[in-house]
Amino acid sequence: MTAPSTRPVRLNDLRGFDLEADVVVVGQGAAGGAAAIEAARAGAEVLVLERMTRGGGATALSTGLTYFGGGTAIQKACGFDDTVEDMIAYVTLAAGPRVEPERVRLYCEGSVAHFEWFRALGVEFKPSFVADKLTHPITDDCLMFSGNEQCWPDCEKARPFPRGHKPAREGEAGGYLMEAILRATLAVGARVVNECRAERLIQRDDGRVVGVEALRQRERVRVKARRGVVLATGGFVFNKGMLAKHAPALLQCNYPTGTPGDDGSGIQMGVGAGGEAINLSEGLVLNAYYPPSAHLKGVMVDALGRRFVNEDAYIGRTSDAILTRAQGRAYLVVDESLYGKTQAMHKLAAVEESFEALEKALAMPEGVLVATLEHYNRNAEHGEDPLFHKAAKWLRPLQTPPYAALDCSTQRSLFGVFTLGGLAVATTGEVLSPQGEAVPGLYAAGRCTAGLIREGRNYASGLSIGDASFFGRLAGQRAAQAPGGE
Amino acid sequence: MTAPSTRPVRLNDLRGFDLEADVVVVGQGAAGGAAAIEAARAGAEVLVLERMTRGGGATALSTGLTYFGGGTAIQKACGFDDTVEDMIAYVTLAAGPRVEPERVRLYCEGSVAHFEWFRALGVEFKPSFVADKLTHPITDDCLMFSGNEQCWPDCEKARPFPRGHKPAREGEAGGYLMEAILRATLAVGARVVNECRAERLIQRDDGRVVGVEALRQRERVRVKARRGVVLATGGFVFNKGMLAKHAPALLQCNYPTGTPGDDGSGIQMGVGAGGEAINLSEGLVLNAYYPPSAHLKGVMVDALGRRFVNEDAYIGRTSDAILTRAQGRAYLVVDESLYGKTQAMHKLAAVEESFEALEKALAMPEGVLVATLEHYNRNAEHGEDPLFHKAAKWLRPLQTPPYAALDCSTQRSLFGVFTLGGLAVATTGEVLSPQGEAVPGLYAAGRCTAGLIREGRNYASGLSIGDASFFGRLAGQRAAQAPGGE
Repeated sequence: MTAPSTRPVRLNDLRGFDLEADVVVVGQGAAGGAAAIEAARAGAEVLVLERMTRGGGATALSTGLTYFGGGTAIQKACGFDDTVEDMIAYVTLAAGPRVEPERVRLYCEGSVAHFEWFRALGVEFKPSFVADKLTHPITDDCLMFSGNEQCWPDCEKARPFPRGHKPAREGEAGGYLMEAILRATLAVGARVVNECRAERLIQRDDGRVVGVEALRQRERVRVKARRGVVLATGGFVFNKGMLAKHAPALLQCNYPTGTPGDDGSGIQMGVGAGGEAINLSEGLVLNAYYPPSAHLKGVMVDALGRRFVNEDAYIGRTSDAILTRAQGRAYLVVDESLYGKTQAMHKLAAVEESFEALEKALAMPEGVLVATLEHYNRNAEHGEDPLFHKAAKWLRPLQTPPYAALDCSTQRSLFGVFTLGGLAVATTGEVLSPQGEAVPGLYAAGRCTAGLIREGRNYASGLSIGDASFFGRLAGQRAAQAPGGE
Repeated sequence: MTAPSTRPVRLNDLRGFDLEADVVVVGQGAAGGAAAIEAARAGAEVLVLERMTRGGGATALSTGLTYFGGGTAIQKACGFDDTVEDMIAYVTLAAGPRVEPERVRLYCEGSVAHFEWFRALGVEFKPSFVADKLTHPITDDCLMFSGNEQCWPDCEKARPFPRGHKPAREGEAGGYLMEAILRATLAVGARVVNECRAERLIQRDDGRVVGVEALRQRERVRVKARRGVVLATGGFVFNKGMLAKHAPALLQCNYPTGTPGDDGSGIQMGVGAGGEAINLSEGLVLNAYYPPSAHLKGVMVDALGRRFVNEDAYIGRTSDAILTRAQGRAYLVVDESLYGKTQAMHKLAAVEESFEALEKALAMPEGVLVATLEHYNRNAEHGEDPLFHKAAKWLRPLQTPPYAALDCSTQRSLFGVFTLGGLAVATTGEVLSPQGEAVPGLYAAGRCTAGLIREGRNYASGLSIGDASFFGRLAGQRAAQAPGGE
């Protein structure tokens, strides 16, 4: 099957429209859901086109953990006096060297209000803090450190506060979060057409985007957007061709994280209409070797038996290090007292009674792993890690045999991945051309854009749902206020 | 200044043309030069638009070393029995995991003939082999190993033969090479318009590219292309905005290699006309810490004092390792007997009488550099490198104090860089859309395309001039044979 052309349909080539609204939102995940609600609240007639039988997007499959801060009610109840300035300092680090300061500032200044926006939709958060190092609470507890806030060197650059907020539901809470958005979407009067897959934008000869051509089950429908189209179609991690073309390094990861809708179609449609796709090489990579948090007291080594990262960093950073510094091959060495099964069920590469035997079993060059572990133990005894500055609470000599090596290699363990590149957008959600001009009538938010966070190695959990929902709201508001296109 | 729009001019909006030809070639480097010559030889009326006062492109600034093999006259004269199959095996490695086998096969099967094509233009090559490890011969000698052919692990996967051929001129021979192409271009009857900068393509409503709008000094000229336009405009390493958007990792490098014309304009024009730009995140990075080749007997360490690469690899591989594995900070440790000044004039970070003192002077964690060098020395005594498999001829203990650390960090030494991403093209040079269809009337070759080599870490010197000139010829031939567009 050939991919549908992503060049827009010319308005002059159309015979008419089948549906119309002021604002047409493509995709009903966190970004599209937020955009639809805000556009309707701003007075626009809103139509949402969702390709799946039910909305939810990648957010519905996620933990639901969202990155809020600057002093949310939950942070205060748990005794953390986070401020907007502290949050800006940290999110600036998380965004990476290509940070857009204005985007970070808006996100952090608006974060408490954004948290309350979710609560007003009926999403509940429990005023409880989880101190243990997890990927997310599996209980209904809420607040946790979800990034590298407490890790070196970030902890020296920004005052650490926990900002990951999980909704008050056990297990994965992303579905619960999205159900609230879906309910609110209907409550504000937006219409939703399911099983309706946008294929091409409709564009006037002067460049203004005026609608969407879609496939509703087998029927081709032309949808007119009087004020604007908001693309909220997700990333492209399920499009192997696009990965090969634009983000080849991410192809090493074996577990695309998202829905099959994350196929890049919205990015391609936006580019076809004159938008620019940027930052396409970047993604977030996740190999969850903890919990149990005892594993942070283990020692991560490459195939030569050498450490390459502080084991207590967020898995976005350690996983990036496995790919780039360790060339995709890594083991977590633990002793009997630390060993526990990970949720991702890492394989045991070897279990031996001595460092020497472990080194041999892993076919490493003689003496290197032994020297690494002896050096680690010697310093850990004094609560020191002169190489990678792991925090003292995780430093403890490995001394209870047997010693096990958990395989954290890309080829032999789960490497989750999603993309962090997409359409260039203004903070208003306007899609930008290579010259930096807005494509009239076209907006975008969520993972189909290059948003708040530009690289995975500094990422913190909850920043994608946070980015998508926050800037989705702004895009919906802006589209609703746009002058009509007629 | 705002960048000119890269959307094509619509033919219907034009009042007429100022110039015309069958084939219009944009850019007169190795790719455009080869395309123009072949298009004219195929019977087409050819017009070359070159933005500089004189053609040459990045090739004219280069060493002129070009990658030929499969049994050239020079290889034979020097006693190397290279074959097409051996060359395919190695170029496949050099291309990287996203290799296009058909493109490699064409290049290698045609390599001897391509070498003779240059000789027929008057380019001389001396039948001499340089065994020393250099970036290129500074004499008029010709043949050398210009990649990782003899290095681990490549040497175990493909029979190693030298394929870098430098023209018979002392010093940098790229200008000499290009002069031959410029002469031949005029000899075959192609016209060249200098100081003429292509700004936009001209496109019919049915999508066919029919010409180029350009700025000749201050005058706007419309150039009609009856059969086709060949973009040969170079890469985008001089466009910092494009690097930030698409190849952020390359921004760590401080020495863009090419001409200011490598600003991505051709890539943007091609995308504007419906082509796709791919592989944009990739580039070749070059930190020349040798010659002198004695430096290969040194020990490259990261900021923690640990080795991370075999020092005898081609600098494309070691430099990539400095960026990705050592996070941009690296030192080459040599002893008194090995030290020599590099052409790039690396700074001395420290000179000390002992390993311990060197470690301290470099502010490394205690004991690590010492352990690294002692481990290296112990194995080097037996001609072994169990960690990185440096070849035995470069293995020798460091034992003649003082010991010096040459700074090979991205911030403190020259890191040359050029881009390896661009327009997606068929092997015929036809520019391809995101759906893999040819954009009618549009061809491209050289560094404005994603060509033979898709990543820097396996690159060998001479592959860019080789790729540009070889596939430039094919693009010129194909454009000349295209049906007229009227």
